[in-house]
Amino acid sequence: MKLIVLGAAGRMGQNLVRVIEQTPGATLCAAIERAGSPILGRDAGEVAGVGTIGVDVTDDLTPFLVDADGILDFTAPANSVAVAEHAREHGLVHIVGTTGFSAQEEAEIARCGEAGARIVKSGNMSLGVNLLALLVERAAKALSAENFDIEVVEMHHRHKVDAPSGTALLLGEAAAAGREVDLPSASVRVRDGHTGPRSTGTIGFATLRGGSVIGDHTVVYAGEGERVELTHRADDRSIYARGAVKAALWAKDQSAGYYSMRDVLGL
Amino acid sequence: MKLIVLGAAGRMGQNLVRVIEQTPGATLCAAIERAGSPILGRDAGEVAGVGTIGVDVTDDLTPFLVDADGILDFTAPANSVAVAEHAREHGLVHIVGTTGFSAQEEAEIARCGEAGARIVKSGNMSLGVNLLALLVERAAKALSAENFDIEVVEMHHRHKVDAPSGTALLLGEAAAAGREVDLPSASVRVRDGHTGPRSTGTIGFATLRGGSVIGDHTVVYAGEGERVELTHRADDRSIYARGAVKAALWAKDQSAGYYSMRDVLGL
Amino acid sequence: MKLIVLGAAGRMGQNLVRVIEQTPGATLCAAIERAGSPILGRDAGEVAGVGTIGVDVTDDLTPFLVDADGILDFTAPANSVAVAEHAREHGLVHIVGTTGFSAQEEAEIARCGEAGARIVKSGNMSLGVNLLALLVERAAKALSAENFDIEVVEMHHRHKVDAPSGTALLLGEAAAAGREVDLPSASVRVRDGHTGPRSTGTIGFATLRGGSVIGDHTVVYAGEGERVELTHRADDRSIYARGAVKAALWAKDQSAGYYSMRDVLGL
Amino acid sequence: MKLIVLGAAGRMGQNLVRVIEQTPGATLCAAIERAGSPILGRDAGEVAGVGTIGVDVTDDLTPFLVDADGILDFTAPANSVAVAEHAREHGLVHIVGTTGFSAQEEAEIARCGEAGARIVKSGNMSLGVNLLALLVERAAKALSAENFDIEVVEMHHRHKVDAPSGTALLLGEAAAAGREVDLPSASVRVRDGHTGPRSTGTIGFATLRGGSVIGDHTVVYAGEGERVELTHRADDRSIYARGAVKAALWAKDQSAGYYSMRDVLGL
Repeated sequence: MKLIVLGAAGRMGQNLVRVIEQTPGATLCAAIERAGSPILGRDAGEVAGVGTIGVDVTDDLTPFLVDADGILDFTAPANSVAVAEHAREHGLVHIVGTTGFSAQEEAEIARCGEAGARIVKSGNMSLGVNLLALLVERAAKALSAENFDIEVVEMHHRHKVDAPSGTALLLGEAAAAGREVDLPSASVRVRDGHTGPRSTGTIGFATLRGGSVIGDHTVVYAGEGERVELTHRADDRSIYARGAVKAALWAKDQSAGYYSMRDVLGL
Repeated sequence: MKLIVLGAAGRMGQNLVRVIEQTPGATLCAAIERAGSPILGRDAGEVAGVGTIGVDVTDDLTPFLVDADGILDFTAPANSVAVAEHAREHGLVHIVGTTGFSAQEEAEIARCGEAGARIVKSGNMSLGVNLLALLVERAAKALSAENFDIEVVEMHHRHKVDAPSGTALLLGEAAAAGREVDLPSASVRVRDGHTGPRSTGTIGFATLRGGSVIGDHTVVYAGEGERVELTHRADDRSIYARGAVKAALWAKDQSAGYYSMRDVLGL
Repeated sequence: MKLIVLGAAGRMGQNLVRVIEQTPGATLCAAIERAGSPILGRDAGEVAGVGTIGVDVTDDLTPFLVDADGILDFTAPANSVAVAEHAREHGLVHIVGTTGFSAQEEAEIARCGEAGARIVKSGNMSLGVNLLALLVERAAKALSAENFDIEVVEMHHRHKVDAPSGTALLLGEAAAAGREVDLPSASVRVRDGHTGPRSTGTIGFATLRGGSVIGDHTVVYAGEGERVELTHRADDRSIYARGAVKAALWAKDQSAGYYSMRDVLGL
Repeated sequence: MKLIVLGAAGRMGQNLVRVIEQTPGATLCAAIERAGSPILGRDAGEVAGVGTIGVDVTDDLTPFLVDADGILDFTAPANSVAVAEHAREHGLVHIVGTTGFSAQEEAEIARCGEAGARIVKSGNMSLGVNLLALLVERAAKALSAENFDIEVVEMHHRHKVDAPSGTALLLGEAAAAGREVDLPSASVRVRDGHTGPRSTGTIGFATLRGGSVIGDHTVVYAGEGERVELTHRADDRSIYARGAVKAALWAKDQSAGYYSMRDVLGL
């Protein structure tokens, strides 16, 4: 499977290049960076620390769309929407790990999937997080809002610029689905000063930032006299790249559509 | 529902008495202690710190079997087997929180259930632990033995005399069921000195003891670059008593049989 | 030592009554509640579940000030300031577990200590938390702000009405002292939406609420590739009452002054 | 400072090569592997993924001893003792991260330090773990054996062949020092089956193994109603290499002697 990596010089892009090199059945056919990047023209394998692989980093995606099978995309919302349109036109696999979409952008991406691309989109590509989301939903259903309060707490490195993380929101959505409530109206995202007692049925978020933490998430169900805590720890950034490449290989054999990692993982 | 509490002067028995007093539809009709206990003759409510309730602690169960609806039993294996026989004869509800049964004792209790009693037996009566066991099984199924190692770690107070805890074994059984393996042959219960590398597919146990910890349990699924951790914390011993009384009220309306807490909780 | 308990019918007051009953050398001489409380006139021991002790709950503190040795006070700031004045006048021990004081109220209480009372004031009376504060300060000093980011996360029950907890702030103060910075200007108490990268040298707070959790606190030091986490878990509310009674017995033999739990515990 | 890396093709050796390349004032002058290694003759920088650096991997340490300033050694006990003898003879810095020494081997290494080498030996070279050991000792001193039980729990990857880890034992030693007891006689390293209640004053160990976990350690102090937990998480193996290089640069300016990481870090 011939794959294009977008943002190939970034931390995630380098991980994708490394994983593709290690994965039987996957080949890197293009490595894209934004115009003006000082990395343009260098060998993508050397940038990623796996030795020369004969694919130079370039800023023009277009010439590769005809021959490629899929695109791995952890970039920015507007760019991902444009790429989804290309994927639709050329019938490509498009793996979208980008986060921060508006509802309208989400809808456009879904439409591109249904209209010809094979899109897998997820706020977190790891096997563990997607399984956790399933367990979070199951637990939220079993433990009633009257008896158990739900809190989502996460920690990421000091460079992260938004809060809560996309994965925390993904887990919050899973909890809200289990409770059959709407997350935006159930969530409490700030507590400071006089808050009053906790409102029944709300889902709280708490955010820690520091060091080089790749991503830890815990969902707590706190009842009278007992707690259930469901945790995921990402110890190595390669889990996301491995998940993305796994998703691409899976999507190659699917019909056009808009898929999630749960579909890929058969959960 | 008229309930008999066995071991009424013990820590668990007192909790049961307190919860019965607070639960609409449940009444204490007898409080039993072993012959020779210095508590015999005292009011069970006073012993439990909820004021006089008019039920004196006694050492003879027999006269109450005719009139009672159910028996709450957190005692010892041999005693619980004898009590199950009484429950069978009188068609009573028998809630068995006792642990440490031999396979033969387990079979006798199951037989008493099928032959006339309505028995609910569980190594842990809390809602949270029973839900956790379900999630543990689900996760063990989704995360393959080749990729994820399973470890069960627990902490209990300094007075606990056995290891691993009954609940740790219950969670280990759930993991083994998810993996479709036999727990006794898959489990690693001791690691000390030169152990060699971990064998694929094993389920490890680790035990901590100290202070007044009521019971914390975590099942860890450790993969390449990520971990999933499923935890239960018991913050208050009353969760077990509430679960037992809930089980009794549920069993009252069932036909004779041998049930688990998953049946009671509808999980 | 003859002790007065304020707020004797509350959860903390009942704990204090129980601990005094169990502590050699300590006697309850008065149990005070606010005017109008339905508990007035009842025996304080019965209210606390330890049987009749011959001390009725009353709303008038004044007649007991002459004969008592000390006052245990987990009430509200304005009341505690007034009580400190009484303690100064009568040369009493005054144990202040109240939180939420203004800077001016703090100063008045300190003055009462220096002018004749023996006051021990702490936002948390447990041995463990006070030791933790010491370790937090030591670690904050050893791990430089350039290399390690400090975060304080806490969880309390659903009824708690303020955030962060007094103990979280106490631990934050300890960290700030170790770093020789001012907590109010270093602290980040809210993260939501686009926050930008973490600022070097800040101390972050995160708050969880739910269930019946008595109080868990963790201070995280997150560096490049490693984390140190210092945690306290309160499993039983009696630790605060035991600490308060221990403080009272200690203060009895001190000269007039304004003390902290570190003084009491010899840390 | 001209440094020799032993075991240069191993995971730790590669980390050391990478960190030396990034550290101003440090240069790699030799990269040693065992005779027969397939890596012999390759460039050590290429093996470590940092590009060609002009130092080939070789199996003969001797020719480099005259010109080098220091040796970084994470190998095996017998080898490290022989290397310490070389370091003594040539007055070199010798950083020993090897674990599993017998008492006699430890003594020989110490003697080499006192007789001319500048040896820094530690079971764990990270700043965080060494600080943690200090806090563990302080806490063990403050929290009496009568009131607080100490437990050490650790988790490492599935390839680790011994238990408990060297770092767990290092933390246990720190706790034992704080309590002024002897670790071997105080430690409980196995719990399985009928253990009886916990003995006062013992220090328990529990071991988890799985996945790719680099190394997590927690020391728990469990008292009546409260717990203090002191944790270190290694998120990246480079912390040990950075600590070792830091130790080498520090030792260069010291007189001959046998040092620990606490000396290096000024704790």
